[in-house]
Amino acid sequence: MSDIEAVRVDGQTFVFLDQTCLPGEERYVRAVDLETLCEAIRSLRVRGAPLLGICGAAGVAIAATHDPSEGALRRAAGLLKTTRPTAVELGALVDRALSHVLAAGTAADRRRDAAWDFVTAVIARRQAEDRALGVAGVPLLEPGSVVLTHCNTGTLATGGIGTALGVIREAWNAGRIARCYVTETRPLLQGARLTAWELVRLGIPPTLVPDTAAAALIASGRVQAVITGADRIARNGDTANKIGTLGLALAAARFGIPMYIAAPLSTFDPACPDGGSIPIEFRDSFEVGGFGTQRWAPDGVDAFNPAFDVTPADLISAFITECGIVRPPFAVAIDVLLRK
Amino acid sequence: MSDIEAVRVDGQTFVFLDQTCLPGEERYVRAVDLETLCEAIRSLRVRGAPLLGICGAAGVAIAATHDPSEGALRRAAGLLKTTRPTAVELGALVDRALSHVLAAGTAADRRRDAAWDFVTAVIARRQAEDRALGVAGVPLLEPGSVVLTHCNTGTLATGGIGTALGVIREAWNAGRIARCYVTETRPLLQGARLTAWELVRLGIPPTLVPDTAAAALIASGRVQAVITGADRIARNGDTANKIGTLGLALAAARFGIPMYIAAPLSTFDPACPDGGSIPIEFRDSFEVGGFGTQRWAPDGVDAFNPAFDVTPADLISAFITECGIVRPPFAVAIDVLLRK
Repeated sequence: MSDIEAVRVDGQTFVFLDQTCLPGEERYVRAVDLETLCEAIRSLRVRGAPLLGICGAAGVAIAATHDPSEGALRRAAGLLKTTRPTAVELGALVDRALSHVLAAGTAADRRRDAAWDFVTAVIARRQAEDRALGVAGVPLLEPGSVVLTHCNTGTLATGGIGTALGVIREAWNAGRIARCYVTETRPLLQGARLTAWELVRLGIPPTLVPDTAAAALIASGRVQAVITGADRIARNGDTANKIGTLGLALAAARFGIPMYIAAPLSTFDPACPDGGSIPIEFRDSFEVGGFGTQRWAPDGVDAFNPAFDVTPADLISAFITECGIVRPPFAVAIDVLLRK
Repeated sequence: MSDIEAVRVDGQTFVFLDQTCLPGEERYVRAVDLETLCEAIRSLRVRGAPLLGICGAAGVAIAATHDPSEGALRRAAGLLKTTRPTAVELGALVDRALSHVLAAGTAADRRRDAAWDFVTAVIARRQAEDRALGVAGVPLLEPGSVVLTHCNTGTLATGGIGTALGVIREAWNAGRIARCYVTETRPLLQGARLTAWELVRLGIPPTLVPDTAAAALIASGRVQAVITGADRIARNGDTANKIGTLGLALAAARFGIPMYIAAPLSTFDPACPDGGSIPIEFRDSFEVGGFGTQRWAPDGVDAFNPAFDVTPADLISAFITECGIVRPPFAVAIDVLLRK
């Protein structure tokens, strides 16, 4: 389905693209044992909530290939869940994969086959949902649209065509995208490193934007819509997403262009009434003031480094989901959506 | 006056701090010939509009030391003005220094002395104006204030105590600042490299903020005011400043904290009726997608890289000048100010 493959199942082997080598090198790694995969998750060689879900299921399958006993599988599941403790989708898919495998009976080969079938099914469903979401977003963009996106929401993040980047890809294929601007996305630079690379590979020429220049870009009238993904959406529509999304939403509102959030149903959290109840992960100061081998701030300077911000619902024009477009008033529309 | 010296006159020698070595190394360079100084200006070893003005005057003095003939001085002036063609203050101070020197008579030693006296006077006036501006801003900040600033507006930019950073410094000395947040300021990272270094040297502990996190920081209620400098202010109050200022102003307005612009009178341009008439410099794509020896974007990707953005006057709470605070309605107040 995707010409770039973030992950794939090859017989009963799991292969992933090492995202830390991008954009310089396209390096595929065969996860022959669980430790290879766990190290890859911990080191962000694979990242993106939906992709980590796939990796969790794959981890259980790798474990089942080596030792399909219940004890070994439970140990593997525990180990996988400690690699990124805040990655909800990773933990959820590990648990579901484990249940599925144990339900397949006690025979070693049946457990193995069930585990790999489950991974294949998870990937297939992700791809189908991403495609449905992407197609649903196309009518929001007029032909010739110039869009701005943030962070990475493509196949490297989901294993399908992506969420916001999936919409952009489908709209490009439908002849509706004239140009795509991408923020660098400090501090981890997923826009400059990963999204720019995906767009080049898709033949959609990207234009990089320093995060500081996004408001000026929107003010200039060059952009017709902002499209981002989401990490968690509250029942009232308040949306947690990669740090920097709030700033884009403020600029879009001020200068009168729509702010679209592309996210699958699984991102809507019925347990969160509003943005204030979404927990925000704060990350190490060292990520700020440098990148890679280059440091540019004085040694030891403290930093404010939240991974996510919360965009209030009134700044969001619509949500794009695999079940269609969700428009305001969001409290009512999201309630209807979650009952589906 | 300032414990950090961005530039100084030492007898009849001009000494500058090489800002490209900061924050790693504090390297002072004696500009023994004009080429050393011109190379330093071209390579951004010295930068900041007011500081470049001082450097322009110093260049004329260095030329006068070597050959004070009118022909040689005019050639030197022409050379200095080509180093940063868009730096208005550089060109203006070169011209004023040249007129001053030529008016001192034809004797070589009188021209030399006049040239160096002029540089010393320019530095002294800059320091006095910065100090007046800094003191004027103090009453805007309640004791215990937490402020956010952007880019570098300190002694490294002006040769005095700076503009926005001068206000922060005076307010810190008056016991009114509890903490100072500083944006990294992509793409050239002047906040992380230079402002963080100045604050450490001043004993004001800085907290770095990725540009993406500034809106979340303001939304969190941790900050009581945003204070930045300005590159040019139109007659209606629209303000061009370092790229990223507009985004900070949008967040400040949304979350109800003041946005202050600290700038000397010379920044107000009577020839500009509004922001639309301020020319914006676009810089090379290569500055985006990497820094120093580190590249993180795919090779050859295009970038949107304006050096400045324009903050509409309605997002600005007040201007802080060496003549006091300028409050809305700005069109009237700026008109009064410019008649002074």
